[in-house]
Amino acid sequence: MESNHRSHFCGELTQAQVGEKVVLNGWVQRRRDLGGLIFLDLRDRSGTVQVVCNPEVSPAAAESADQVRGQYVLAVEGEVVARAPETVNPKMKTGEIEVQAFHVEILNPSKTPPFMLTDDTDVEENTRLKYRYLDLRRPVMQNTLKLRHRAMQSVRRFLDERGFIEVETPMLTKSTPEGARDYLVPSRVHEGEFYALPQSPQIFKQLLMVAGMERYFQIVRCFRDEDLRADRQPEFTQIDIETSFLDTEALLTMMEEMVATLFRETIGVEVERPFPRIPYREAMERFGSDKPDLRFGMELVDLSEILRESSFRVFTSALEAGGRVKAINVKGQAGWSRKVIDGWNETARELGAKGLAWLAVREEGTAGPVAKFLSEQEWHDIMKATEAETGDLLFFIADQPRVAAEVLGELRVRLAKELGRIPEGVYRFAWVTEFPLLSYDEEEGRYYAEHHPFTSPVEEDIPLLKTDPSRVRAQAYDMVLNGYEIGGGSRRIHRREVQEAMFEALGFSMEEAREQFGFMLEAFEYGAPPHGGVAFGFDRIVMLLAGRNNLRDTIAFPKTASAACLMTGAPSPVSDRQLEELHISRRKGNSS
Amino acid sequence: MESNHRSHFCGELTQAQVGEKVVLNGWVQRRRDLGGLIFLDLRDRSGTVQVVCNPEVSPAAAESADQVRGQYVLAVEGEVVARAPETVNPKMKTGEIEVQAFHVEILNPSKTPPFMLTDDTDVEENTRLKYRYLDLRRPVMQNTLKLRHRAMQSVRRFLDERGFIEVETPMLTKSTPEGARDYLVPSRVHEGEFYALPQSPQIFKQLLMVAGMERYFQIVRCFRDEDLRADRQPEFTQIDIETSFLDTEALLTMMEEMVATLFRETIGVEVERPFPRIPYREAMERFGSDKPDLRFGMELVDLSEILRESSFRVFTSALEAGGRVKAINVKGQAGWSRKVIDGWNETARELGAKGLAWLAVREEGTAGPVAKFLSEQEWHDIMKATEAETGDLLFFIADQPRVAAEVLGELRVRLAKELGRIPEGVYRFAWVTEFPLLSYDEEEGRYYAEHHPFTSPVEEDIPLLKTDPSRVRAQAYDMVLNGYEIGGGSRRIHRREVQEAMFEALGFSMEEAREQFGFMLEAFEYGAPPHGGVAFGFDRIVMLLAGRNNLRDTIAFPKTASAACLMTGAPSPVSDRQLEELHISRRKGNSS
Repeated sequence: MESNHRSHFCGELTQAQVGEKVVLNGWVQRRRDLGGLIFLDLRDRSGTVQVVCNPEVSPAAAESADQVRGQYVLAVEGEVVARAPETVNPKMKTGEIEVQAFHVEILNPSKTPPFMLTDDTDVEENTRLKYRYLDLRRPVMQNTLKLRHRAMQSVRRFLDERGFIEVETPMLTKSTPEGARDYLVPSRVHEGEFYALPQSPQIFKQLLMVAGMERYFQIVRCFRDEDLRADRQPEFTQIDIETSFLDTEALLTMMEEMVATLFRETIGVEVERPFPRIPYREAMERFGSDKPDLRFGMELVDLSEILRESSFRVFTSALEAGGRVKAINVKGQAGWSRKVIDGWNETARELGAKGLAWLAVREEGTAGPVAKFLSEQEWHDIMKATEAETGDLLFFIADQPRVAAEVLGELRVRLAKELGRIPEGVYRFAWVTEFPLLSYDEEEGRYYAEHHPFTSPVEEDIPLLKTDPSRVRAQAYDMVLNGYEIGGGSRRIHRREVQEAMFEALGFSMEEAREQFGFMLEAFEYGAPPHGGVAFGFDRIVMLLAGRNNLRDTIAFPKTASAACLMTGAPSPVSDRQLEELHISRRKGNSS
Repeated sequence: MESNHRSHFCGELTQAQVGEKVVLNGWVQRRRDLGGLIFLDLRDRSGTVQVVCNPEVSPAAAESADQVRGQYVLAVEGEVVARAPETVNPKMKTGEIEVQAFHVEILNPSKTPPFMLTDDTDVEENTRLKYRYLDLRRPVMQNTLKLRHRAMQSVRRFLDERGFIEVETPMLTKSTPEGARDYLVPSRVHEGEFYALPQSPQIFKQLLMVAGMERYFQIVRCFRDEDLRADRQPEFTQIDIETSFLDTEALLTMMEEMVATLFRETIGVEVERPFPRIPYREAMERFGSDKPDLRFGMELVDLSEILRESSFRVFTSALEAGGRVKAINVKGQAGWSRKVIDGWNETARELGAKGLAWLAVREEGTAGPVAKFLSEQEWHDIMKATEAETGDLLFFIADQPRVAAEVLGELRVRLAKELGRIPEGVYRFAWVTEFPLLSYDEEEGRYYAEHHPFTSPVEEDIPLLKTDPSRVRAQAYDMVLNGYEIGGGSRRIHRREVQEAMFEALGFSMEEAREQFGFMLEAFEYGAPPHGGVAFGFDRIVMLLAGRNNLRDTIAFPKTASAACLMTGAPSPVSDRQLEELHISRRKGNSS
């Protein structure tokens, strides 16, 4: 018997193979000795099958099996037999059969793993990360990586069929002053100079449009040296796309089709199209978020007009200071205790609001601190605006517009989760559009590009660049899904005069602009086509497809929140000689 | 007319569209004004078509066209018309038709490019690299990038169909002491520590086998901070593959099929299979190279035995010193002048040989310095061994075995090129196998792993690890094509006792080994399956597919021999603040 002549995969054996001789390769998932009969659950990438080693059938196989322990690597030769009806295991895909072993060869032994390699392991994540090569043996992790693979192939096939060309862009690039913090790579040949790892291939993909590639894509690693949150990784994968001569509407439609194809081909879900287009301003008004979760209602209602004359000072003072009063209707929760409501009030404060006012519409009358201040008319108008009925609970926030919207938006999501009002297995997509082009930095006293300085303004807003830059809308769009931003992009500026107006709004002279973005601006003078594109966060898409809630579970070898790899020990000290060759030295006792 | 409503691609218009209204987008490749009629060659990704702007048909179009210059970006609306027979251009794919313009919209003007954007441009490469976004507009470059794209999709599809899973491995990894020089990335969070960019995902792909992935692939960027030759780049792309439970023969057969599929799907070439397997020792004997070019003969012949008693001291002293006498038969070149032969002698010296002896078999008798020293028997045996006939020229090198083989091997290739004996459009593949496992470093007084310390020895040579390590053959294999190594791999050690013997041969204690390869060795104790893999140099494969002879022409944004990007200016100086955050400083006046 040779280990390499595997005849079948473990998980694919069925009644159809009964009577056949098979050779299997795999790992021992479980071993039980029942009075001399040894049962091995043998696992390979396809699944698990039960192997029976009976000394009366093969003394040699039973003897080998006797030495076997969990996670040993075996080659097993045997015959597929039907299980007796009473021993059929309906929970196991291969549970109607088992393999009667003739030979059991130990290809490699194994030490006892530091944790149970099962889907429901409850070991802490750091141990899983340290022994990632064992963690990845768990079926749930194997299935996620397989899903990730299928997702990549689906996207590539879709784009390939539509004439997109996959072009690899450099990893050793130039550090740019704006944007997030770069990872730097010291140059050995050019003393004192550094490469930067790309935060995205933005510049290169736009130059590929100047180069006449017309349709580009890449599934590409990007890097950001930022402090990590649960859903950030220092290196992440992006589906990067750029097109020329295609208007935004055509691009968005194509991207919807791509995502729909992806969901169909990986998890069999049919996605509803076209995706709604929600202008940024509307998204903030209705959901208090630029990535609204559309799987449930509970929309924000603006009561500012209704309450402008209110006798409740909390409301009117906020309104007088330029703020808003916004509310959500927590359907059917009028019965919540004061304690529960206080908890939500506390949450609102933690999120940055001054507090949460409330109104419970109960059978016995309206309760809550707001109630006694409302006129009949106000009460009536509020009930109507929030579609409140008896049994409902209203939460109000009166604050600066952004705070009121964002805090209430966050409460909306948390309340829906808490109340189990978010349906499972539902995928609600949308495009959020018309983002602000610029944001004003009070500290620096100047405008910054929200996206990047090559994002095109909405055509009709171009004159505002000179008069009221903060009102200029960008031709930028985010694809959102279930409360996550999964992609974003924009139409780019390709006309020189618009680019100049943009730099002026950012407070740059063309000379300063040229210093910072030199070769890019030069390239644009040689016939840049109209172009635009989008980039999707691939890790996050896989997370949503796999139904996981941790980006690390979608990445084979992820890093921790401190950007370390617990398995390899990266980053790590290096030799002085290496640093010398790179013309750098360690800076001692630095605490920046 | 809207620019985004392109109806056709320029290069796809034929007689079939005559009479149709079309909207085209593209760049002006050429503009000619023939007595008021303006002819524009409009180019997009698909090709070029002639647009005629006739003031009698459309004064507006002609007026726009009058302002147009080369590389302007246009939207053209017009009608496809058949050309008059005498103006048909048979050199142009669309030469039977032209587009009569109704509207010409200038989407963007262009400065005059610094060089002609044609396939036969003769501008120096550095200018092309600086203006890469223009260089890539040249059809030959566009076609190479398209070919590269198709090659990637072909390989992925092939592997996907055979159950390979594409897994992305980290770019921020750990620096390892053996191997080439690493690119390092300072860590901001972990003061004084560094990541390394991967030279290959070797460790990760082996750990994926330990993780039970069974079949892995990735088309992945790798990095080596080495001094660059014409065919090296600091970052390069590798097709990386690893399999478990598959013997070497099955893997090599599958890889042959993958490459054959690739050649069929990209350039329509049917590759002959199976590829010959040539042991390393034989390759060196017959071709003086471990990457033999099999497109032509002119094999090396070992004359050592024939010449052992020769009266020519050059031969016998080399043989007595443990060397060899090897020869090649330069068919039909007996007439070469002394001067030409002296030129080759000079080349042989430059390549490291002491000199080149020669023998010209002429009608009038045998000429050359060797002739007079040969006995009748020696002459007869040499003629037979080299299959020499009248008119042939024999070149001899007598030197240490390696020098004799390698120099003559190199001469073989140069002579074949010079003499035009290498057929065009022929692809001759082979596997070179049984490489030496270890090489002895005289300076350091120890053995080094030729491949890496996890490469498995040939089974029957394992005992030699203790007695005669230099004779141990590796289960390693290179795929060679037309004189290039395009891929290589090995079966890996998965058994602990073999790994220990290997480390012992390398002069490491298990403790030292554990210090250097800690987590890898630990992983191998938890049930590593038998596994092996291969990695292909994707850039080089694309170069051969595209019939180019410069790796840079296959990469969208390549680096120069000093690892610089002439377009972006990377690497470049960065701010002190960036370095401070990374806890490093520049080392001044260092000349290492």
